[in-house]
Amino acid sequence: MGMNMTEKILAQHAGLESVVPGQLITCKLDMVLANDVTAPPAIKEFAKIGRPVFDNTKIALVPDHFTPNKDIKAAGLAKTVRDFAKENKIKNYFEVGRVGIEHVILPEKGIVAPGMCIIGADSHTCTYGAVNAFSTGVGSTDLGVAMATGEAWFKVPKTIKVELIGKKPKNICGKDVILTLIGKIGVDGALYQSLEFAGEGVAELTMTDRLTIANMAIEAGGKNGIFPYDKVAEEYVKGRVDYDFTPVEADPDAQYEKVITINLSELTPVVAFPHLPENTHPVSEIGEIKIDQVIIGSCTNGRFEDLEQAAEVFNGHKVHPDVRCIIIPGSQKVYMDAIHAGFVDIFVEAGCAVSTPTCGPCLGAHMGIMTAGEKAVSTTNRNFRGRMGHVDSEVYLAGPYVAAASAILGRIAVPEEVE
Amino acid sequence: MGMNMTEKILAQHAGLESVVPGQLITCKLDMVLANDVTAPPAIKEFAKIGRPVFDNTKIALVPDHFTPNKDIKAAGLAKTVRDFAKENKIKNYFEVGRVGIEHVILPEKGIVAPGMCIIGADSHTCTYGAVNAFSTGVGSTDLGVAMATGEAWFKVPKTIKVELIGKKPKNICGKDVILTLIGKIGVDGALYQSLEFAGEGVAELTMTDRLTIANMAIEAGGKNGIFPYDKVAEEYVKGRVDYDFTPVEADPDAQYEKVITINLSELTPVVAFPHLPENTHPVSEIGEIKIDQVIIGSCTNGRFEDLEQAAEVFNGHKVHPDVRCIIIPGSQKVYMDAIHAGFVDIFVEAGCAVSTPTCGPCLGAHMGIMTAGEKAVSTTNRNFRGRMGHVDSEVYLAGPYVAAASAILGRIAVPEEVE
Repeated sequence: MGMNMTEKILAQHAGLESVVPGQLITCKLDMVLANDVTAPPAIKEFAKIGRPVFDNTKIALVPDHFTPNKDIKAAGLAKTVRDFAKENKIKNYFEVGRVGIEHVILPEKGIVAPGMCIIGADSHTCTYGAVNAFSTGVGSTDLGVAMATGEAWFKVPKTIKVELIGKKPKNICGKDVILTLIGKIGVDGALYQSLEFAGEGVAELTMTDRLTIANMAIEAGGKNGIFPYDKVAEEYVKGRVDYDFTPVEADPDAQYEKVITINLSELTPVVAFPHLPENTHPVSEIGEIKIDQVIIGSCTNGRFEDLEQAAEVFNGHKVHPDVRCIIIPGSQKVYMDAIHAGFVDIFVEAGCAVSTPTCGPCLGAHMGIMTAGEKAVSTTNRNFRGRMGHVDSEVYLAGPYVAAASAILGRIAVPEEVE
Repeated sequence: MGMNMTEKILAQHAGLESVVPGQLITCKLDMVLANDVTAPPAIKEFAKIGRPVFDNTKIALVPDHFTPNKDIKAAGLAKTVRDFAKENKIKNYFEVGRVGIEHVILPEKGIVAPGMCIIGADSHTCTYGAVNAFSTGVGSTDLGVAMATGEAWFKVPKTIKVELIGKKPKNICGKDVILTLIGKIGVDGALYQSLEFAGEGVAELTMTDRLTIANMAIEAGGKNGIFPYDKVAEEYVKGRVDYDFTPVEADPDAQYEKVITINLSELTPVVAFPHLPENTHPVSEIGEIKIDQVIIGSCTNGRFEDLEQAAEVFNGHKVHPDVRCIIIPGSQKVYMDAIHAGFVDIFVEAGCAVSTPTCGPCLGAHMGIMTAGEKAVSTTNRNFRGRMGHVDSEVYLAGPYVAAASAILGRIAVPEEVE
């Protein structure tokens, strides 16, 4: 019986010929990730084991959540990670100001690659499925153990095949694809299941689209989200990954729990209402929703193409007087590329604040927190109650096109409405 | 009997022919300033009076301390200021992302001008003495009353004349001048007195130097610090200030409490040790002091020339692995100019984080807070115990040259030590 992409990677890393959904397996890990929030408890668990790190080239530590240190506690967390990285000669430790946000920089720097088995103590670790890796979020305890053993156990997930068909219209981005999917199946629609993207429509998606889509697999409850290794992926990986890797493709007779078809040509710009990513509405049907803040960036939509889309909309326009707009490039490379492309000029001319890379407002950490009654359009991945501040503030999720148009008009809007 | 610069401005604004030190007077105000921390209590006091604002063109409100909103409380403060500005049609309200830090943008945009009488609910309001204004910090209660009445009372201060002589050597900046002065006279050396800068050496100082020096008058206890209106000042003010103003100059027979002479040609790069700005030491005499963080920016040293000095030192060099370096331009204009001059490329290439304008770490608000045992070199104005985070962290004050060199070498250093 054939295997799908996730099953193939898990089988290979478990040293098995094949695996089936529901099977409990132990896998060797190619990369183990934590950030300034999750590494400190993982380091504590790791210390209890009393072994050295399994491989100092296969651990990535990225202080990006509460950094640049937002308070004394954050400074303590960052120091814990820094000291551990130094003591254990962790190759992929990325100091504040050096590189950027974890899920943006690991693909960008070729630290994750096709066919890899990756865990991270961060729920959006599923991002790396965009480069044909199996990658999933775990708790800090599992992460601590993995830093010592290089292994983790999994229950092989069932897989939902998401068949993408049709041509992607202009002004539709990865965010519209994933929000539409989550709107269809719900935030538990893929609970402990793999989302495998397939079909002719995959070729329509840029790597930025795919990274956004895989990033939010968890928002449908997915264990992971994974894309095939096609020419687009090959083009992206080439020159970034400098070691051998083995991409996987699904067998023709692979088994799926079900198949969901999304016709890209039928997509319209959408926004997810508070307080769940499944509350997807076409922007054309929502009426007037005034907003106070716009966030463009994050591990979901903080890549060059995301900022390019925002710049395209902002060009020659101003942020609405009642709106604060904060642009947060996902990495120093994205930031530099955006400067050289003239996007930062456009943003500042429009009246946006441009931040150094940080997770910041996405998780209500800092850099754009809201008080009671305020509303934000955000390109981040979660709009849970109180996520970006006060329990009575609201987050509307959207892609960069909608976010930028909304910043200009002071209400949730699409670029076509900007005159 | 002749008057000095401060006495002249106070007399004019009190409607008197002349004033003498110790006299209690009430002055009409040309500009009244508050930020996101101090405006909310001022607004509360203002509301008790039950009058409209005295002049909506003469109030400046700048949310810059805890912004972009670092937490829910900060968001509430910012909202209070925003709502007040909207309700009272305050002309000089500057939303986050639009302009920058109060003491950088008010001179930059020509909102403060020579001969003006200005109060601000921020101790570093004395900055505007650089443009030949009388400008001083007040509490939020006085500020609230002033927003209603357009007036404030003062005790006319005694004046210390700071006679500047000699040529300023290369790599010596305004920060070295003011730290040297404070080191000489102490943090209470000018308590409730005016510091009037005079002498041939004034012409040696750029407007950036003067803004840094006037900014820190309060760190010697000064009521204000004031510079003459010379060609350098005229060049700066021209094209910024678009209304009539009346510069002042000291009478030849003006009275001074005392005269302090500083020979610029004898200055060396200095650093102020924790926990007072008076703990000035020549960098050449301090031995090895390892550091964890460098902050370059703030209302003291966040102007174009400051970033230019930092960029000059960083060019082709990297931030030391053990140091986080955070660059904070003082305004969006400074930020854009720094981008266009290539400084931001140099900073990012070196491994610095570049922040959007904010007071941030200077007052321990956010964006670079330290935990116990950490040491920072900072171009900000205060190094009081716990100012940048933990009570057991330490701040060393210096100018941009020393700060940048220290970031590269991981210890407090001068640019000449960078190879």
